[in-house]
Amino acid sequence: MTDEYFMQQALLEAQLAFEEEEIPIGAVVVMQNRIIARGHNMTERLNDPTAHAEMIALTSAFSKIGSKYLPDATLYVTVEPCLMCAGAVYWSKVSKIVWGAGDEKNGHQRLTQQRSPFHPKAEIITGVLQEECAALMKAFFKQRR
Amino acid sequence: MTDEYFMQQALLEAQLAFEEEEIPIGAVVVMQNRIIARGHNMTERLNDPTAHAEMIALTSAFSKIGSKYLPDATLYVTVEPCLMCAGAVYWSKVSKIVWGAGDEKNGHQRLTQQRSPFHPKAEIITGVLQEECAALMKAFFKQRR
Repeated sequence: MTDEYFMQQALLEAQLAFEEEEIPIGAVVVMQNRIIARGHNMTERLNDPTAHAEMIALTSAFSKIGSKYLPDATLYVTVEPCLMCAGAVYWSKVSKIVWGAGDEKNGHQRLTQQRSPFHPKAEIITGVLQEECAALMKAFFKQRR
Repeated sequence: MTDEYFMQQALLEAQLAFEEEEIPIGAVVVMQNRIIARGHNMTERLNDPTAHAEMIALTSAFSKIGSKYLPDATLYVTVEPCLMCAGAVYWSKVSKIVWGAGDEKNGHQRLTQQRSPFHPKAEIITGVLQEECAALMKAFFKQRR
């Protein structure tokens, strides 16, 4: 099982968001090579601007595992987490974070350039299926214009 | 109605958290001098490290008002928001944020010193009932040691 495989699964979630006219971002939480939780952006449906893919996938994972910490888990998300989601990832204690496309406007790195918001030992991998992840976002916003 | 009055209400929420053996942080959301939502830390009860006072109060406010933006609202919280909650506050578009005690360890300012995570026009007021808010935290962690 590769990072690309799980990012593809996160992309399927993003595609669901796209079909629901939500900003197309998807996430999966993986433990021992198994997907334990999925999520996609639901800010419109839930009328809640905090209902991001990562928040939904993480909350689902806490519930599934019955633990509020996920040190053995990896979070895959199609787009660079925003500040809120980066903070949630920190609290979750997931030890590996993988994202696809960067987000110059809303990504956390714009605000935290100097200091990583994640645990010092967390592994961060970026750019996995970057083009596919970015293309879905571009298609969404182009359609909206 | 003063900031002190509403912070006192947030402190009542923090006190509830204390009694439930949760980290004692409380929040209220106010619109037109009325409290529209309340929340306190529930990370233990919900087994979810993202169940912070601010997240609960904001989510409750979106639901109550039926809008995912709260530009006419003020968030009162007893302790400086963490990075996740600062991000959630940004997304909520609340126009005024008031907190009591600072939080050197987990407060968002440690990571975003140079760049505010809030909207440029948002009004930020700190230090309201600072001592009372901090005292409750100290009492909690002293009891835990």
